[in-house]
Amino acid sequence: MPVGAVVVKGGQVIATGHNLPREDHDPTAHAEIVAIRAAARALGDERLTGCELWVTLEPCAMCAGAIGHARIARLYYGAADPKGGAVEHGPRLFDQPGALHRPEVYPGIGAEEAADLLRDFFRERR
Amino acid sequence: MPVGAVVVKGGQVIATGHNLPREDHDPTAHAEIVAIRAAARALGDERLTGCELWVTLEPCAMCAGAIGHARIARLYYGAADPKGGAVEHGPRLFDQPGALHRPEVYPGIGAEEAADLLRDFFRERR
Repeated sequence: MPVGAVVVKGGQVIATGHNLPREDHDPTAHAEIVAIRAAARALGDERLTGCELWVTLEPCAMCAGAIGHARIARLYYGAADPKGGAVEHGPRLFDQPGALHRPEVYPGIGAEEAADLLRDFFRERR
Repeated sequence: MPVGAVVVKGGQVIATGHNLPREDHDPTAHAEIVAIRAAARALGDERLTGCELWVTLEPCAMCAGAIGHARIARLYYGAADPKGGAVEHGPRLFDQPGALHRPEVYPGIGAEEAADLLRDFFRERR
């Protein structure tokens, strides 16, 4: 599934990631997790304070949880994911009363292009 | 924070993990994630079908999400985590209507010993 993520700080790209759980035999290897781990490694800090995460699809619960642990300041994403999303759908993790960290959230950034990418991918597989 | 996790299949330990986000500069390095990634690598499969995950503390949203993606069959955990837990607290991820996978959940396994471990750890840091 083609999902891509980028961690940006002060206008500079710190790390990128794309979805590869199947290739890597790693159920946690969503684009956001790959990018967050690489950014934390690059910065030598488990907290990505002041960083932005840009991702083409609404994050799932695992990724939204990781975004909270990483203290991402701003989250920008493309296509909404009514089935697997956990930001504006399902558990809406950042709206939970006990949420340990709430990034600013900007949904729908390049949503049409991101949705097209996913649509084309699933059409080719059918 | 001392949290440990073990992935077991057919009575055999496949992988273990402990919490090390600070040491590893990796905000995703919770015990469960470390153990799940290692187990998937060991089995050469992103899905841990038929596997059990044992962990000393109630999983957070990130880890509960990963447990779902990994298709863990049975989840056993020790101490409940009213603040950060996402299984019997907060978003209760496996009870969400759209949950993609629901493991069998057995809370409170060795809960007292697990809670003692955490209490001692936090007492020493004060």
